[in-house]
Amino acid sequence: MGEEMNNKQVILNNYVKASVKESDMSLRTSKIQLKIPSGCDGAVLVKNLYLSCDPYMLSRMKKLEGHYVASYTPDSPITGYGVSKVLDSSHPNFKTGELVWGGTGWEEYSLIKDPSLLFKVQDKDLPLSYYTGILGMPGMTAYVGFFELCSPKKGETVYVSAASGAVGQLVGQFAKTAGCYVVGSAGSKEKVDLLKNKFGFDDAFNYKEEQDYNAALKRYFPDGIDIYFENVGGKMLEAVLNNMKLFGRVAVCGMISQYSLEQPEGVHNLSNLITKRVRMEGFIVSDHYHLYPKFLEMVVPLIKEGKITYVEDIAEGIESAPGALVGLFSGRNVGKQVVAVARE
Amino acid sequence: MGEEMNNKQVILNNYVKASVKESDMSLRTSKIQLKIPSGCDGAVLVKNLYLSCDPYMLSRMKKLEGHYVASYTPDSPITGYGVSKVLDSSHPNFKTGELVWGGTGWEEYSLIKDPSLLFKVQDKDLPLSYYTGILGMPGMTAYVGFFELCSPKKGETVYVSAASGAVGQLVGQFAKTAGCYVVGSAGSKEKVDLLKNKFGFDDAFNYKEEQDYNAALKRYFPDGIDIYFENVGGKMLEAVLNNMKLFGRVAVCGMISQYSLEQPEGVHNLSNLITKRVRMEGFIVSDHYHLYPKFLEMVVPLIKEGKITYVEDIAEGIESAPGALVGLFSGRNVGKQVVAVARE
Ligand SMILES: NC(=O)c1ccc[n+]([C@@H]2O[C@H](COP(=O)([O-])OP(=O)(O)OC[C@H]3O[C@@H](n4cnc5c(N)ncnc54)[C@H](OP(=O)(O)O)[C@@H]3O)[C@@H](O)[C@H]2O)c1
Ligand SMILES: NC(=O)c1ccc[n+]([C@@H]2O[C@H](COP(=O)([O-])OP(=O)(O)OC[C@H]3O[C@@H](n4cnc5c(N)ncnc54)[C@H](OP(=O)(O)O)[C@@H]3O)[C@@H](O)[C@H]2O)c1
Repeated sequence: MGEEMNNKQVILNNYVKASVKESDMSLRTSKIQLKIPSGCDGAVLVKNLYLSCDPYMLSRMKKLEGHYVASYTPDSPITGYGVSKVLDSSHPNFKTGELVWGGTGWEEYSLIKDPSLLFKVQDKDLPLSYYTGILGMPGMTAYVGFFELCSPKKGETVYVSAASGAVGQLVGQFAKTAGCYVVGSAGSKEKVDLLKNKFGFDDAFNYKEEQDYNAALKRYFPDGIDIYFENVGGKMLEAVLNNMKLFGRVAVCGMISQYSLEQPEGVHNLSNLITKRVRMEGFIVSDHYHLYPKFLEMVVPLIKEGKITYVEDIAEGIESAPGALVGLFSGRNVGKQVVAVARE
Repeated sequence: MGEEMNNKQVILNNYVKASVKESDMSLRTSKIQLKIPSGCDGAVLVKNLYLSCDPYMLSRMKKLEGHYVASYTPDSPITGYGVSKVLDSSHPNFKTGELVWGGTGWEEYSLIKDPSLLFKVQDKDLPLSYYTGILGMPGMTAYVGFFELCSPKKGETVYVSAASGAVGQLVGQFAKTAGCYVVGSAGSKEKVDLLKNKFGFDDAFNYKEEQDYNAALKRYFPDGIDIYFENVGGKMLEAVLNNMKLFGRVAVCGMISQYSLEQPEGVHNLSNLITKRVRMEGFIVSDHYHLYPKFLEMVVPLIKEGKITYVEDIAEGIESAPGALVGLFSGRNVGKQVVAVARE
């Protein structure tokens, strides 16, 4: 019998309709034995160190059928990506004391019955929290969406929306390593400064100060956009389609401006796909995790040589998790939103 | 000096705003010398035999800037694809008496100053009018959009809209040669019968009799659509996106339901591209004409062996051309709309 501990958990009270508020979640303390119970072969028991706040979690808070991710269960702790330490294991691949990242619960300790979405932390010289971001799911998202879907060529023009976020800040930096000209948009002056001065974007603008996205894009891309890394959808996508170059590519990563709407906005100018021969392609990062080792080979040296940097927004304590998650949808986060639950 | 002849021409009276009516065009008779005038090196003088009615011509009737095709000039004859006989040539590639297809005027005789969009008629065993359709631009469109953009695999499900038209009837037949399951939609019972009984579609429906496109598609594709050959846009595209399978492909060929609208409809569910990992790609056939010899190699034997058939709707005389063109936008044509101006 392992030690019995208090286990603070983030509970989804009930399905949400469109947007999410902090009061849709609550904190609950339950008890947990720090040992794999009998009958749980193949399970791993972990202590959660960092939890990742990711926009897709909003769709899991809704009652959706046939979606690519399953809905959460109301009155239960929600789940997501995190970085954790193995306390006990009945799985041959994981040993007590090891550090892992991947699918875990929003709680202090989790019994992970199916550890197939767990990866081992490879490189301990880098901040552990990076495995919720640049070295984890958002890093892979930027890599797959930009390199695999968009096949960037030197000298091409790249536009990134939600550009200072977990994914966007990396897309911009990857675009620079590929020799592209890159402009990003974000929702505050502080974020625009980061884009220009910290992440090396060639230019950046605050979309909240633009009345006319179309005119803004014409200003930053007088000759048009070769590659659009789509994070926001809606009116911004519409403006981008008007400004694409011939044979442009759109990696459709996310549409965060639409997630909280009861009725998504319409895009009225898809005929640009024809006249400009544009390719638009959606993707889900988890289809591409076989590329993770190749990705690490590329990105770890870039980080160590200081050629790529990563900004995180770390909220302290599991009590701050609901607010941190909700903040994504109003842009409260500056950089990758992480929740530090414990430091080893 | 060649013979001077009367030359009946179809004139665009003025730019159109959204939709086109017969009265936007008029017939005019001018005079032409059947000889290349001096100072026209590299030109070809032709007698037009068949003219092709194509939906893209409507956009050329509008005053558009920076479009992929130039607007027509009001008070001048319009131009388009056709099959013609060379009467005189100052171009080394073309000789008097040869048959050609490609860009020509909507008139009885045309002086083609830039014959770079002319192809020679290769195979005279097949109906000459086929070079406006199956052996010409629409044939190449079906070929490129289906095979090059969609990479069909045996057993995949294919949906084609405007399926009985110049392009659609071929997409369906190509899909069958590729071992796919194919369903088409068209705007009348007669067209639906053609799809099922003449072109060998596995199933077909009259979209005008469906209140709910989404429900109709669910009926014909209970497991979803792998490949959509998009000819119509708007609400149909929206319904299709709800019914795509994972990793589906959409070849965006045309959006004819939108061409006559002042305000195009909005598509509200593009987030399906992400959740279903769908690729949507627009194309213009003329970017792919280098594949024409490869295309002929495939299609000519299929026609001669009776494995592919082609339905044309031939209007007689240049006087019928404006009505034939306008008819495309209400679905008056059954099969490829051609105008026979002269028979050799
Ligand atoms: N396809 C995949 O596999 C995959 C994987 C990961 C992420 N994603 C998607 O990638 C996108 C970025 O995710 P992330 O993790 O990097 O999040 P993030 O950018 O760190 O956080 C979300 C940001 O979106 C912006 N935002 C919020 N509401 C907005 C609105 N109405 N209009 C415009 N911007 C808005 C805010 O920044 P501002 O202050 O700039 O507005 C906010 O900080 C999301 O759409 C997400 O769903 C997709
Ligand atoms: N990308 C390219 O390079 C390229 C090249 C050629 C053609 N295209 C496009 O391919 C499509 C088909 O062209 P096509 O030459 O084969 O023409 P088509 O099918 O022979 O003629 C047009 C047909 O469209 C249908 N239609 C008209 N208005 C409609 C509406 N509001 N909603 C739904 N259907 C409507 C009608 O059939 P129903 O009776 O079934 O309604 C009509 O017969 C067009 O969108 C065209 O612009 C693109």
